[in-house]
Amino acid sequence: MFKMNKKLIRDSYPIGELKLCKIRLMNNSKFFWIILIPKRKGISDITELNLKDQNLLIKEIVFCSKIMKKVFKTSKLNVEKIGNIVPQLHIHIIARFKNDSSWPLSVWVVKAKPYQKKILGSIVSKLNLFF
Amino acid sequence: MFKMNKKLIRDSYPIGELKLCKIRLMNNSKFFWIILIPKRKGISDITELNLKDQNLLIKEIVFCSKIMKKVFKTSKLNVEKIGNIVPQLHIHIIARFKNDSSWPLSVWVVKAKPYQKKILGSIVSKLNLFF
Repeated sequence: MFKMNKKLIRDSYPIGELKLCKIRLMNNSKFFWIILIPKRKGISDITELNLKDQNLLIKEIVFCSKIMKKVFKTSKLNVEKIGNIVPQLHIHIIARFKNDSSWPLSVWVVKAKPYQKKILGSIVSKLNLFF
Repeated sequence: MFKMNKKLIRDSYPIGELKLCKIRLMNNSKFFWIILIPKRKGISDITELNLKDQNLLIKEIVFCSKIMKKVFKTSKLNVEKIGNIVPQLHIHIIARFKNDSSWPLSVWVVKAKPYQKKILGSIVSKLNLFF
């Protein structure tokens, strides 16, 4: 059975669910940042998904990308599959801005800062509407 | 007409071409690192590709990922669309190892180091075989 990695659960909040992926908001107030986690067991790489799931993945990346651009009013997204620390396949989609805390560098060069509870709730509600 | 960004050309070497993307090797000896550049004009985000090209993109990412895993003998890849500095859509596929120069962090935390000419030639030849 599909099980989500504990670190992914600890670091993020549920937003919604699509056919292939669970969608969660990363608890890092420095960036508007969601992750997509394919609900498939034992998968750590895109190549391990079957062809149907690969096509679903790009479809759901595009769907979520459009939401991120609309909700956070930016044309610039970083879309990344890293997984060096948490091997379970998950895709990061991060809204970027010219005045964010690591621009133009990668988000990985700055330390995460958790949200205040109230702000977290308001962002989760905004995103919830789309799922 | 499609034109490749000058910085992308300067920082990488041609490896081959698929239906959607040009494939190039990044001139950074710290990582085995290719980029896929969709041959479409004025595109900076995956959402701007049409549906057919989105499906081609994931297909070519999977195709190139399998080559990277095979040639460089690793199961771990980073697959990233960043584009903060070069807006033209390009996807990074990077072979990662537990003893590489930024593991487990992102490749973006260390400075690039160009290849020696001979080594570059040998890697380009190895990859050329698949395109």
